[in-house]
Amino acid sequence: MYTFLNDKFLPATDATLGVNDLAIQRGYGIFDFFKTVGDKPIFLDDHLDRFFHSASRMRLDPGKTRDELTAILAELRELNRIPDSGVRITLTGGISTDSITPGRPNLVITQFNMPAPGKACPPPIRLISYPHQRQLPDVKTIDYLMAIYLQPHIRDRGASDVLYQRDGIVTECPRCNFFLVTALGTLVTPNRNILNGVTRKHILTLAADAGIPLEERDVHLDELATAREAFITSTSRHIVPVSHVDDIPIGVAHPVATTLTSKLHHLVNAGN
Amino acid sequence: MYTFLNDKFLPATDATLGVNDLAIQRGYGIFDFFKTVGDKPIFLDDHLDRFFHSASRMRLDPGKTRDELTAILAELRELNRIPDSGVRITLTGGISTDSITPGRPNLVITQFNMPAPGKACPPPIRLISYPHQRQLPDVKTIDYLMAIYLQPHIRDRGASDVLYQRDGIVTECPRCNFFLVTALGTLVTPNRNILNGVTRKHILTLAADAGIPLEERDVHLDELATAREAFITSTSRHIVPVSHVDDIPIGVAHPVATTLTSKLHHLVNAGN
Repeated sequence: MYTFLNDKFLPATDATLGVNDLAIQRGYGIFDFFKTVGDKPIFLDDHLDRFFHSASRMRLDPGKTRDELTAILAELRELNRIPDSGVRITLTGGISTDSITPGRPNLVITQFNMPAPGKACPPPIRLISYPHQRQLPDVKTIDYLMAIYLQPHIRDRGASDVLYQRDGIVTECPRCNFFLVTALGTLVTPNRNILNGVTRKHILTLAADAGIPLEERDVHLDELATAREAFITSTSRHIVPVSHVDDIPIGVAHPVATTLTSKLHHLVNAGN
Repeated sequence: MYTFLNDKFLPATDATLGVNDLAIQRGYGIFDFFKTVGDKPIFLDDHLDRFFHSASRMRLDPGKTRDELTAILAELRELNRIPDSGVRITLTGGISTDSITPGRPNLVITQFNMPAPGKACPPPIRLISYPHQRQLPDVKTIDYLMAIYLQPHIRDRGASDVLYQRDGIVTECPRCNFFLVTALGTLVTPNRNILNGVTRKHILTLAADAGIPLEERDVHLDELATAREAFITSTSRHIVPVSHVDDIPIGVAHPVATTLTSKLHHLVNAGN
């Protein structure tokens, strides 16, 4: 397996960063992550848009144009030949001379085997809610401190993931966006203080095309009790239905999640 | 210059971590930082206490006992021979197999030249306030995302550092604790949602010994207008007086900061 580092393709195990990189010293860096299905990058334009947006917001210069980065990604896929994979593009703060000012960013691109999501919804999962707001939520930073810190707490509660909320307003899971279907059948998802998920964006388009009523707005914790359905979305998992948030049961059937999973699978596999 | 990495002393430039370390992928790691003055580690016990506390809170196993770590630190000082230095002990999340579960932590110890703080107070600085609360404030995590992100904003406002507040309650600067002296002469410092600074601890003892009235409690932003004096404290800078927070001028003379700087200098240099 090869990894790209700044200007070279290296065997993955040789790809290292100096211990004074600001990612290691100060948790300062951004990334993006897309999948390939049947060797085809999925929604690459969206992921590159967001990667350059994150880099710009954190004042990190990727050192490559969009075309150069696209060519590097193609060459990496050619070297690794993993049809169904995840590709992670990371940009770090680089070596700082004063441990607070970013240096020249390090660009790291890794690829690894990742099975493509299927045509059918996976079984529903339980979430717990937790009061937290990600820093710079519109930026895909490397900050997953709370996500990792909370893992034992999530497991102890018999749940699979955590749903962040602040002052009773739900935002997102650490690596997924959150949707619910109201009692009246409207698909609702938060639209502020969240990461703008690429899967979220395509779900919204697919739902609109299917004539499902949509609202992008604040979602309150107390709306969960009357929700007909809830699910989370991400690049690696597409759509995962939610059976409970804390001790609140949410729906039993997941018709909207099922419909959208099928449509998303079709979109992702179009042309394969 | 040598760096210690897990079980070896390496030339500093050879000390690297794999790009899949959770510090780089997920900003997951802790550290501590102490100084040596005249080759003597300052307040080492306090820093080791806090290092092991941080590691435990983040469920990262340092892989060394306190005695082993102390011996490694002594050997590193012996190899590097930098009388006045900063020593940083970092413990990262290690290589994760699923990019969310910590692996075997990497232990990194770096040493670098750092002039010892002087007998006299440095010139006062300006702070700006900013609404932010550090995650897991009692843990010295590597999360300095907002601190770095805000640097241009701080400079644009003609300030040197940022004072975090939430809902009008002041906590700390990214790398310093905050103190003020009220109009009645009481030394006040926040006691919750902060990092328990080692310099802060010794300042409190020195102030108590000097008969200065003390309060550890919430500090409100609106107390700044009537404060007689304010200062920030840290391992690398000891005490730095504050002339303004935002546009609020605070005192002109800094008698308490001056007295405590002198006492702290004496304590740090005792026996040299």
